[in-house]
Amino acid sequence: MPNNISNEFMNEMWKNVQAACPLVHAITNYVTVNDCANALLAAGASPIMADDADEVAEITALCSATVLNIGTLNRRTIDSMLLAGREANRLNHPLVLDPVGAGASTLRTETARQLLNELKFTVIRGNISEIKTLAVGSGQTMGVDAALADQITDANLPDTLTYLKAFSRQTGAVIAVSGAIDIITDGSTAYICRNGHPAMSKITGTGCMLTCLTAAYAAANPQNVAAAVATAFTLMGLAGENAASITPATGSIRANILDNLATLGGEDLKAGGKIVKM
Amino acid sequence: MPNNISNEFMNEMWKNVQAACPLVHAITNYVTVNDCANALLAAGASPIMADDADEVAEITALCSATVLNIGTLNRRTIDSMLLAGREANRLNHPLVLDPVGAGASTLRTETARQLLNELKFTVIRGNISEIKTLAVGSGQTMGVDAALADQITDANLPDTLTYLKAFSRQTGAVIAVSGAIDIITDGSTAYICRNGHPAMSKITGTGCMLTCLTAAYAAANPQNVAAAVATAFTLMGLAGENAASITPATGSIRANILDNLATLGGEDLKAGGKIVKM
Amino acid sequence: MPNNISNEFMNEMWKNVQAACPLVHAITNYVTVNDCANALLAAGASPIMADDADEVAEITALCSATVLNIGTLNRRTIDSMLLAGREANRLNHPLVLDPVGAGASTLRTETARQLLNELKFTVIRGNISEIKTLAVGSGQTMGVDAALADQITDANLPDTLTYLKAFSRQTGAVIAVSGAIDIITDGSTAYICRNGHPAMSKITGTGCMLTCLTAAYAAANPQNVAAAVATAFTLMGLAGENAASITPATGSIRANILDNLATLGGEDLKAGGKIVKM
Repeated sequence: MPNNISNEFMNEMWKNVQAACPLVHAITNYVTVNDCANALLAAGASPIMADDADEVAEITALCSATVLNIGTLNRRTIDSMLLAGREANRLNHPLVLDPVGAGASTLRTETARQLLNELKFTVIRGNISEIKTLAVGSGQTMGVDAALADQITDANLPDTLTYLKAFSRQTGAVIAVSGAIDIITDGSTAYICRNGHPAMSKITGTGCMLTCLTAAYAAANPQNVAAAVATAFTLMGLAGENAASITPATGSIRANILDNLATLGGEDLKAGGKIVKM
Repeated sequence: MPNNISNEFMNEMWKNVQAACPLVHAITNYVTVNDCANALLAAGASPIMADDADEVAEITALCSATVLNIGTLNRRTIDSMLLAGREANRLNHPLVLDPVGAGASTLRTETARQLLNELKFTVIRGNISEIKTLAVGSGQTMGVDAALADQITDANLPDTLTYLKAFSRQTGAVIAVSGAIDIITDGSTAYICRNGHPAMSKITGTGCMLTCLTAAYAAANPQNVAAAVATAFTLMGLAGENAASITPATGSIRANILDNLATLGGEDLKAGGKIVKM
Repeated sequence: MPNNISNEFMNEMWKNVQAACPLVHAITNYVTVNDCANALLAAGASPIMADDADEVAEITALCSATVLNIGTLNRRTIDSMLLAGREANRLNHPLVLDPVGAGASTLRTETARQLLNELKFTVIRGNISEIKTLAVGSGQTMGVDAALADQITDANLPDTLTYLKAFSRQTGAVIAVSGAIDIITDGSTAYICRNGHPAMSKITGTGCMLTCLTAAYAAANPQNVAAAVATAFTLMGLAGENAASITPATGSIRANILDNLATLGGEDLKAGGKIVKM
């Protein structure tokens, strides 16, 4: 399907990130935290990771955006997430949730729900099983990957859009689902993105990195968060497809994704973004 | 020494991993956890890391195998290891121990012993100093690497086999020792593997990754765990020797090991495995 | 400015590290811990990470040097840092502080001060904002990076040297500040190093890795710690400039830095080090 909108906004939003160099506070899992920090740096932003209850509010206050990622969750960091999230809300900073593994354990599902109840998120970014679990209670999360049965297809796209828009209106957050077909919606309009490559699911952290980029783009482009998120998705998708087009070897793809995040420019997003607005 | 068995089983076992895509739960150290996740993905399996007492049993229950790795051990995760291990035992899932640094501190040695006392392991995978510490109480662990004095040589191979077989019969676990000469034994037969490259000891995480591959191979090949572990060792050994044959530069070797884990196939294991059954 | 000293000592100090293969205990953040372990291995040293109060003193005792890095600080590891630090002091082992983010939060600034009050450090390695915060109370730390306003220039070099020397005399530690211009001082003499590349700030962990290399070089060269630290800075600086000269792509630079740490030799340091003694 050809783009039905101009991608010029992506060029502008990319430039805004380079100009602002947003400092992003991430309370995130220890599996992919290094990838998240390098992805933010490569994309022109700056990371700080801090998860102790005694400092998270202060760190959030000096940052432009905050990410709460519930992979490798533990009791200590749940309190920290609430403290950081409240400070981000108080300061009206973008706050992004990555509900890693929601649906895979009671702790993760309930923590995601608690965070949604107590905090106001700007963006919720997950795979379709995680989001479905939170939106309609029926995602079939297998570990930290989306279940085949849940995947977004052209056939189920209209129904999926309906419940994602409803979830967006209910939470007040932009809902951003990544997969072969990405959906980003603010409750009224939606962006459908088709960049990316299946090999991205063979490298840990592509989702977590995307969440961090989402936060950076939202911070530098507060005037249109849904479009900012669509731009971050396009950047990550292009980085993945460029990297995976060279080789099936995942160690090289992994390094190459960072390379692409560092070298793709706004003009590349404009030229390569496969995006439809609905 | 030429192989005295056919490697055809390696081809089959590799195919079984690709078909099963086993989900592996790892409670592991934060130094090499990202490498472990990427190694599992590259090799056709799937990782999930979770270490909070409130979710580990539930996560183990949805997985095909569980790894307990005692690097960067702390009191909080010891409880989680016991909970996950008991659930794996209850469900008869493969449970793999990596006693990182056993012998280097009282905490690590005693925790490894406690895990051995309270849980039934399918495989115990370590370097010779760690295994010797647990098997006969006299390993000379230097940090997280094997001591020179402990190393397996052709000269001490018969004596080493004797105590490793005894340790296997005592624990009911396949004992799997990696080094220049690898030994895998189920108490009666043993596989001696000679793949690998000295440069692998210059990259952190090669042992931890191997343990995770071991769990994936055991999960997909329950009919012969010792042979499955020997296949995982051959895969990691070939990946390391292929990577290190190109360059002495460890950053490149590191990425290249993942590349090889992703691209080596069952036929490559069959062709390249240097293995003797005793 | 041409070198005003011979770099021959760097060759010797590099050889001493290869011969000693110092085992370094690092209590460090989970963002860059894997990079730290790989950097130590690449440079000829050996890492062990352990942070539980029940084992840190024992681990420190079997190592040649100890690093305390306060990134991703938490209450549990602060106690461990004090225990490990006291043991290092008791054994007269090199003890190195990396005050990551001092100035960015009260917790980090106060913890850094507490560690300085209760322990005797051999080296304190940070960026200029972190060091300025601790030395004169006025660093403008932005997250974990140095503030532009704080940066060392040729114009402020004399004044900067004055307060760094005073801080060195006050703490008894070699003060080692990395940036475009590096300063290493033992309170009387100072080394000014000008290796490195701006792209190094686009890869997470270059500072943390440098701190670990500093500990390894101090451990293997106790006769002149300031010169040892200058050698470690030269090694990291050359690795970064070699890596960044090839490509602006940060994933590749990251792997390439490790490659260079593994392949640069003492003769390369001697030939490439840009260093002035004042």
